[in-house]
Amino acid sequence: MFDYKLLAALAAVVEQAGFDRAAQALGLSQSAVSQRIKLLEARVGQPVLLRGSPPKPTEVGRRLLNHVQQVRLLERDIQGQIPALMEAGTGPERLRIAINADSLATWWAPAIAGFCSERNLVLDLVVEDQEVGLKRMRAGDVAACVCGADRAVSGARSIALGAMRYRALASPAYIRRYFPGGVDQAALPKSPAVVFGPDDALQHRYLESLGFSGTFPHHLCPSSEGFVNLVANGLGWGLVPELQAQDLLARGELVELLPDRPIDVPLYWHYWRTGGALLEALTGELLRTAGQLLVPADS
Amino acid sequence: MFDYKLLAALAAVVEQAGFDRAAQALGLSQSAVSQRIKLLEARVGQPVLLRGSPPKPTEVGRRLLNHVQQVRLLERDIQGQIPALMEAGTGPERLRIAINADSLATWWAPAIAGFCSERNLVLDLVVEDQEVGLKRMRAGDVAACVCGADRAVSGARSIALGAMRYRALASPAYIRRYFPGGVDQAALPKSPAVVFGPDDALQHRYLESLGFSGTFPHHLCPSSEGFVNLVANGLGWGLVPELQAQDLLARGELVELLPDRPIDVPLYWHYWRTGGALLEALTGELLRTAGQLLVPADS
Repeated sequence: MFDYKLLAALAAVVEQAGFDRAAQALGLSQSAVSQRIKLLEARVGQPVLLRGSPPKPTEVGRRLLNHVQQVRLLERDIQGQIPALMEAGTGPERLRIAINADSLATWWAPAIAGFCSERNLVLDLVVEDQEVGLKRMRAGDVAACVCGADRAVSGARSIALGAMRYRALASPAYIRRYFPGGVDQAALPKSPAVVFGPDDALQHRYLESLGFSGTFPHHLCPSSEGFVNLVANGLGWGLVPELQAQDLLARGELVELLPDRPIDVPLYWHYWRTGGALLEALTGELLRTAGQLLVPADS
Repeated sequence: MFDYKLLAALAAVVEQAGFDRAAQALGLSQSAVSQRIKLLEARVGQPVLLRGSPPKPTEVGRRLLNHVQQVRLLERDIQGQIPALMEAGTGPERLRIAINADSLATWWAPAIAGFCSERNLVLDLVVEDQEVGLKRMRAGDVAACVCGADRAVSGARSIALGAMRYRALASPAYIRRYFPGGVDQAALPKSPAVVFGPDDALQHRYLESLGFSGTFPHHLCPSSEGFVNLVANGLGWGLVPELQAQDLLARGELVELLPDRPIDVPLYWHYWRTGGALLEALTGELLRTAGQLLVPADS
């Protein structure tokens, strides 16, 4: 079997983002941690860490980390039955999950809060959209992923969670300024929009649904809350998750451009088949809670 | 002088994130755009773009883009006087700015909304914390940067904007669960926290101010709104910008762990000296508006 003392040192250096904090977390000296990493690299025959601040795993290092995480999840299953097996000082279980920014800004926390408290689970969240989240799954860098792509990567399962409903919103001041006579569909592509990033095609899709294709002036803002703030402050119109805009809509600080023209974006939960009982239980919980917070995917 | 038709093609491919959309934006065929890029690379003697989806500038490509941006800013100064100089189809001015996530989630939009509307300026925002934002300044990838480091990079100026005030918050349910007898400073490092990422030392600083140093269980959540959501849903305690928590504090959905123990984080505005009158004017506006939204840096 692998030498898990060495692998645990690698995991600690990456999770604690440094040799000194890793040493603290493991209750070792810093030089002991360094030695374990060097020994691991001698066995593997290549570097597992790029030394830097913070140290980052190499390709092979990432594969080892994924293995450690999967082993920890499997250990967790047994721990309930044989608690004495755990080494001293083992803290709560960590689970590394990639998730799209809009989910994290809206339904994610209420969906998993109860589960994390009950199971003493802490999350290491990585914000990635779409393809990048799946790439991290494939690389073994995360144990699970919430994204808009439905096709499971090899070794993983994909489950539909429901859909996020987006609405094209703007501030009343923006509408008064650009559409004093009411929102004019033909003029919409000439007034500034807000776009999350180069991969965000929602605004394009909305304009296409109105018969327009082409470029339009837009701010780029790769932050969910920043996006809503730009829209609420009248810098542009944009597609905002309904869940995120409820208060602003109720207070009249945001209004829908054209009445009741939502775009629904389906979301999927990808997780490793070999992730063990904790990941299976989280999956079951998520299916239940996400269903209450999202809209049905095919509506 | 440089051939700006070639440089404009480079800028369009990067800004539009693809050759096809760049062609649309420039009113050219896709092959004409490709030819311009190839010609530019032949002149420069090395690649300016990494072909991919989206295409990314190489090191030298980034330097050229920065040059294009600075030239555009300078053109903008003259445009007011000699509008006929502008080529047809030139849209609103774009400004690429790196900014830390918490600023974008709070004071940034209200601070610049008026200016952007008046000047017909669209922003290309990049979310980066601290050092990375400055690295992008140095590489010429952004025209300006909001971050916590005060030292200006060569060729740029740095101005203090004020400070963001953070408070250590948790939900009432979290406090009932972990501190049924009131918040116990000594027990705080044993109950789960939320940390933005490996570089976020605010929670560590808070615990150090209480006399504790060492590791503590924590969720990692590199998203401002996700961070507040995790805290509000009782997954952990964490340092939240006061500006972002006002409503939740007023409604009692978040409470301060220990009364009135804020941490103030100073913020600086870095911008190129040669950025032209638009960037100077934005700087003036920002100094005025940020002063109203932030707390004084030395308070």
